[in-house]
Amino acid sequence: MNTKNKITVFAPATVANVAVGFDLLGFALDKPGDEISVKFIDKPGLVISTITGTGNKILPSDPEKNTAGFSALCLLRHLGIENMGIEMEIHKKMPFGSGLGSSAASAVAGVMAVNELLGTPLSKQALLGFAASGEELASGDYHVDNVAPSLLGGIIFTRNNSTLDIHSLPVPTDLVATVIYPHIEILTKDARNILSKEISLSKSIQQNGNLGALIIGLYNNDYDLISRSLEDVMIEPQRSKLIPHFHDVKNAAKDAGALGSSISGAGPSIFALSKGLSTAKKVGQAMQAIFTKNGIINECFVSAINTEGCKRIL
Amino acid sequence: MNTKNKITVFAPATVANVAVGFDLLGFALDKPGDEISVKFIDKPGLVISTITGTGNKILPSDPEKNTAGFSALCLLRHLGIENMGIEMEIHKKMPFGSGLGSSAASAVAGVMAVNELLGTPLSKQALLGFAASGEELASGDYHVDNVAPSLLGGIIFTRNNSTLDIHSLPVPTDLVATVIYPHIEILTKDARNILSKEISLSKSIQQNGNLGALIIGLYNNDYDLISRSLEDVMIEPQRSKLIPHFHDVKNAAKDAGALGSSISGAGPSIFALSKGLSTAKKVGQAMQAIFTKNGIINECFVSAINTEGCKRIL
Repeated sequence: MNTKNKITVFAPATVANVAVGFDLLGFALDKPGDEISVKFIDKPGLVISTITGTGNKILPSDPEKNTAGFSALCLLRHLGIENMGIEMEIHKKMPFGSGLGSSAASAVAGVMAVNELLGTPLSKQALLGFAASGEELASGDYHVDNVAPSLLGGIIFTRNNSTLDIHSLPVPTDLVATVIYPHIEILTKDARNILSKEISLSKSIQQNGNLGALIIGLYNNDYDLISRSLEDVMIEPQRSKLIPHFHDVKNAAKDAGALGSSISGAGPSIFALSKGLSTAKKVGQAMQAIFTKNGIINECFVSAINTEGCKRIL
Repeated sequence: MNTKNKITVFAPATVANVAVGFDLLGFALDKPGDEISVKFIDKPGLVISTITGTGNKILPSDPEKNTAGFSALCLLRHLGIENMGIEMEIHKKMPFGSGLGSSAASAVAGVMAVNELLGTPLSKQALLGFAASGEELASGDYHVDNVAPSLLGGIIFTRNNSTLDIHSLPVPTDLVATVIYPHIEILTKDARNILSKEISLSKSIQQNGNLGALIIGLYNNDYDLISRSLEDVMIEPQRSKLIPHFHDVKNAAKDAGALGSSISGAGPSIFALSKGLSTAKKVGQAMQAIFTKNGIINECFVSAINTEGCKRIL
């Protein structure tokens, strides 16, 4: 793409569920993330000209079938300018199927890039539904626990996915995330199917207690409370079976000083939250060591909570 | 009782569960409540000399078997002065079995009165465990969703009942409670037994969304969000079957402008929350009208959220 009049945005990876907020909580990382560039062209319609960083996977270049393309199309249709000539380049700079919201980042970047190119006719918040539609194309679910923090940044609580009833939570300044991505494959479908459709009332109450207390801990900057609350009794016991060495990694994180840890999204990535960057780095080393000694290639990302979300970088 | 050196405390009624915080949320009312008086006597040991306001029910006067007496005994034992001569008068000024935390109010008033008489050797917060033990004697469960707000006032969220991990939530200034107590009997045992031991994952997620959003609404003074969040999809659909005309009463509350309504504790009382006193009064009239036209005697209490909790009144 000719760089003249080109606009590039970055949409960050996200950690969804956050132990106790299954389908409801998510936060954004500084890195990794996806980059998408757009520019006006003379030929009518949205065209995806380039897709990089997909490794062995081939993403559809038809905008109707591409997560980033579709979210952008939804915006263009909303504005009644579907035939506007726009060329889009997609640069995947984060792993697929990692539990880090790869499709959400693409959906967010796609719609945000086009909105920027058009001179921001809509606010960031107003793009949420279009991004959710892009995400739905990839995941089959209209939910925003990854999309909302990737777009808006911070820690986002969703009361109701279908009505986009979302709320930004306070982000304690010293809260730092560590994410370990072990190079093993878990299909989101399998991660969904392993979940029991019923849970016990007592576990539900315990989870409610931890979710409420996590929110209170964030409002009150209470790291001890955040730590006590990061205990998933509903989902993690079921899904952790899909991640080898999960409990050793979790114990390593705790021993290294993490406030808590759990599965990122549907996995296989595991996130930890720590107070302070140096602890978060030690936690990362300790978690990586478990996978590494067991011969599992892995990557570590250490990041403050990204409070900006998706942004224009060029 | 000779009034010389007598100390009297008032412990308020409470609304537990608050639609979406089953076993975890509760708030205190200004009225009704229980009054307990204590004074030193020469004869060793705690003696309950008078119990009034129990109607047809006979409460045990043995302190070991009486909710108020037992919570006081727990404190005296903790302090190593079990044989201290103390006379206690219990004046029940609220209905039993109403779902308004009658036994919790007695447990709180009992331990608070003795602590005051002794010159407050312990803080209010430190009395919580003793009050919970008194409540356990009556209800069979060691839980603090009524006891904590009756003691401390306000809206209290409990992360974990067994560790007394409780947290005060902000109380929006204009939040006013309406409580209707229909004179029908529901045994707490029946209200427990009607509950399914399992719930669907999807309903649990919906409830989590509402609970988290209610807490956020309280922090942000967001009455619309509080209103959207006061929707119990877990417990109310099961327990409301025990309360005749429940849905009509609930609809009447909503139509009269309530933010939301649900069952108070294990029922049969129904609470509503409204913005402002005049709305709360209208809501009360509308709710009462349904019971009254159906021939059910009922009482209405309209009260701001009581942020003081248990207090010395004489």
